[in-house]
Amino acid sequence: MTKANAGNFFEDFEIGQKIVHATPRTITDGDVAFYTALYGSRFAVQSSNQFARSIGYRDAPIDDLLVFHVVFGKTVPDISLNAIANLGYADCRFSVPAFPNDTLSTVSTVIGKKENSNGKTGVVYVRSKGVNQRGQTVLEFIRWVMVRKRDANAPAPKPVIPDLPEKVTLTKQTLPAEIKFNLYDNQLAGSPFRFDDYEIDEKIDHVDGMTIEEAEHGLATRLYQNTARVHFNQHAEREGRFGKRIVYGGHIISIARSLSFNGLGNAFRIAAINGGAHVNPCFAGDTVYAWSQILEKTPIDGWDSLGALRLRTVATKDRPCAGFPYKGDDGKYDPSVVLDLDYTVLLPR
Amino acid sequence: MTKANAGNFFEDFEIGQKIVHATPRTITDGDVAFYTALYGSRFAVQSSNQFARSIGYRDAPIDDLLVFHVVFGKTVPDISLNAIANLGYADCRFSVPAFPNDTLSTVSTVIGKKENSNGKTGVVYVRSKGVNQRGQTVLEFIRWVMVRKRDANAPAPKPVIPDLPEKVTLTKQTLPAEIKFNLYDNQLAGSPFRFDDYEIDEKIDHVDGMTIEEAEHGLATRLYQNTARVHFNQHAEREGRFGKRIVYGGHIISIARSLSFNGLGNAFRIAAINGGAHVNPCFAGDTVYAWSQILEKTPIDGWDSLGALRLRTVATKDRPCAGFPYKGDDGKYDPSVVLDLDYTVLLPR
Amino acid sequence: MTKANAGNFFEDFEIGQKIVHATPRTITDGDVAFYTALYGSRFAVQSSNQFARSIGYRDAPIDDLLVFHVVFGKTVPDISLNAIANLGYADCRFSVPAFPNDTLSTVSTVIGKKENSNGKTGVVYVRSKGVNQRGQTVLEFIRWVMVRKRDANAPAPKPVIPDLPEKVTLTKQTLPAEIKFNLYDNQLAGSPFRFDDYEIDEKIDHVDGMTIEEAEHGLATRLYQNTARVHFNQHAEREGRFGKRIVYGGHIISIARSLSFNGLGNAFRIAAINGGAHVNPCFAGDTVYAWSQILEKTPIDGWDSLGALRLRTVATKDRPCAGFPYKGDDGKYDPSVVLDLDYTVLLPR
Repeated sequence: MTKANAGNFFEDFEIGQKIVHATPRTITDGDVAFYTALYGSRFAVQSSNQFARSIGYRDAPIDDLLVFHVVFGKTVPDISLNAIANLGYADCRFSVPAFPNDTLSTVSTVIGKKENSNGKTGVVYVRSKGVNQRGQTVLEFIRWVMVRKRDANAPAPKPVIPDLPEKVTLTKQTLPAEIKFNLYDNQLAGSPFRFDDYEIDEKIDHVDGMTIEEAEHGLATRLYQNTARVHFNQHAEREGRFGKRIVYGGHIISIARSLSFNGLGNAFRIAAINGGAHVNPCFAGDTVYAWSQILEKTPIDGWDSLGALRLRTVATKDRPCAGFPYKGDDGKYDPSVVLDLDYTVLLPR
Repeated sequence: MTKANAGNFFEDFEIGQKIVHATPRTITDGDVAFYTALYGSRFAVQSSNQFARSIGYRDAPIDDLLVFHVVFGKTVPDISLNAIANLGYADCRFSVPAFPNDTLSTVSTVIGKKENSNGKTGVVYVRSKGVNQRGQTVLEFIRWVMVRKRDANAPAPKPVIPDLPEKVTLTKQTLPAEIKFNLYDNQLAGSPFRFDDYEIDEKIDHVDGMTIEEAEHGLATRLYQNTARVHFNQHAEREGRFGKRIVYGGHIISIARSLSFNGLGNAFRIAAINGGAHVNPCFAGDTVYAWSQILEKTPIDGWDSLGALRLRTVATKDRPCAGFPYKGDDGKYDPSVVLDLDYTVLLPR
Repeated sequence: MTKANAGNFFEDFEIGQKIVHATPRTITDGDVAFYTALYGSRFAVQSSNQFARSIGYRDAPIDDLLVFHVVFGKTVPDISLNAIANLGYADCRFSVPAFPNDTLSTVSTVIGKKENSNGKTGVVYVRSKGVNQRGQTVLEFIRWVMVRKRDANAPAPKPVIPDLPEKVTLTKQTLPAEIKFNLYDNQLAGSPFRFDDYEIDEKIDHVDGMTIEEAEHGLATRLYQNTARVHFNQHAEREGRFGKRIVYGGHIISIARSLSFNGLGNAFRIAAINGGAHVNPCFAGDTVYAWSQILEKTPIDGWDSLGALRLRTVATKDRPCAGFPYKGDDGKYDPSVVLDLDYTVLLPR
């Protein structure tokens, strides 16, 4: 019997099954510095303890996407080691903020399963929850992946497809209760634009571009203890579909978020990811650009000083975004588009 | 109206104008480790809490150049986003040491301005000051950049050129008051040579070379939240003057300082940068070597145990420095020279 | 007189000589995060403070190999700057665990010396000891290197060859006294296999591969303040034996250890390295795979809950390890093999 983890196949997942993922992870100042070096993010709340305290945090919280990557990474060996594709995300909500020295671990529950008509693969839906050392949820999300069957002759299970909300409904719980903005300093934050300065349908070109290096996305992916094989093994990928390593999709999300500072500098927190697709793969040497559009503006009930912007952020490769490249008349994505992310950020009013 | 920062142009700067730069930054142990990984610096005071305490610091202070890069990086979006060239530095003095968990922010004052004869560009002089969370100055320097005019037809302002001291005058304030050297251990520090062992005009070949990787200078520059576009965007730079990304000049300064350990191992602190020029650009794949010359020796008034060496450190690319490459008979720099730095370091006597 | 360190030559070493190596190093959370980014290690004890505390550590200890690399790195300027080859390791024992904010320094004693028959080089044996700020030994090992003579005409010294134990004898001192396993959680640790599940001679393919990048091994080697020139200087190595930089051997050991998680997930601590050889050099672009074999199983006297596995871990380049590549019938290593490491790990029973 082999002792190496072969990962789970379609037959191994059962509706209602709870999976405790391995390797809890204490996130530290070291991870924060590394994350800054990877993406150069400049949101003041995450960069400065003093700035964070001035608005009511006890310290600079961990970047929301660093939390996402760490929580997500843990699910890979159990959920997607044999995945052919990461099909989608939904209902991703960030709740209690994480701080340096918090220990995060992840538990998933299988909430859906449907065999594909080819009989060789199926789609598995899981809800994954990241919790801190006090058992508080820092993040939860639904994710669905296409997984190989171990045995093509195994009978198809009864299909169960979970409800996937089109967007996350923000609740008190997804908001940082303690925040106040009377001392929030636009100059130190780097942007004069607050919630009320944005308009629905407004488009923002984030201007800057960032070129991806093989070493950088490898370091990033290992920092998150993400073990997806396509990111690390050039020897194997040389024979694969693209002949080279694929950049971890989360790396692209973080680059896009960092670029979005230029135009959305006060969007200090991601409250939710409503959905998203990695439209095209990225490779080392590609330069990522991004633009955003305001999809919705939601003043927050009982919270005069805070508003939520629902955004579409589109990242491209090797194409600047002054022209806001997206989909053609045929509804197909422009070939430069690599990411189409629908998410909700919080800004002071 | 666009929400992305377009940077300031020549007309936007006014004499006396004070600019509060964005994104205060808490520097942590994570940044210190990353800095060590980037340059492999081996100065004992910055590497070991115990060593630092043995001479009177409360902990290992942050490397002076890491402080410089962070403080400098903040000025880029406001001062040099539209800069054609970083022309020079002067009067750069390091004062209160920074420690992990200090939060640094930067404020600049415009102190000079002169339009160029072509009517399209001008030179702007600013004094930038880095302060910690207690309002103490950790670093200040004058810097001048060539910036584009927004409108070539705008009238030329009255030229104002500030006094630029040829070298920094060290004062009590620029020295760490609490330091004592009776317990300073040469063996642990890695060098038997103290202040009195160096002679004016002496030249030191630092022997070792370090090759620059694209990923490394990108990680470094983002760690400093420096947003200068020429460093990150291969897609744009492919069409630029060199067809490739330019390595951040501060990266070269840090490599040269790290190499200088081999010969100047007890030069535990940079007190001042008197001036410096990035003589030639560096690119990934270049191997940097360095040598130094002792320009001046200054025993420090009322301080028997400490002396200041004014140094010229010259960095080259792809040329070892046993022959001390510098300028030819025509006064022009040897083509291998990339950096000519005039600075002052402190050593125990 | 030159002030740069020229390193020691064969004649410079004397039996019994004690060498205090330079640059004590405070290891922090920053180093831990960086190490994770380099190798993606997933052993729960080193990854999570909570997990570590649940079995009796006060915090997550520093990865044993990070301790090794830091302690080893300090010896390079004195011991192996003029080395032609790192010939071997023996009697390497890990004792008191290291934690973030510990300061490590290294002292070596020359324990053997033998001139080679060519009269130009000799072998020097040293025992190096890494100690923390309380003077406790965290690690010690014997290492022998081939070093150039300064003067080929210098007379050969009387040969002294130390006893090199074939394997380390574990003693109480090399074990963490405080550990208990009643709360050890296999699921969080990521493996159902404990000491008693392994059999002597069993072979385990660790399946995954990791491709080496130039920037990564450079960052790693500088993080350890290891100054061996072959790792950093492409300009010099272009003229060298391989025409390119050689990857630091310790980098390969760490990759192999990280890969070994997949099959040995509960091997939470390295107790000893019995011996090892870097069979072939590695270069950037190589993909490292690994497999292990159980050489011995040692229940530990008076310790019902803990056992020691003596392992051979073999790392290859560009060759997956399903077929356990090792030596041919002629006793020579398969050309894909880069590392043959004989070491002892601890697992809960």
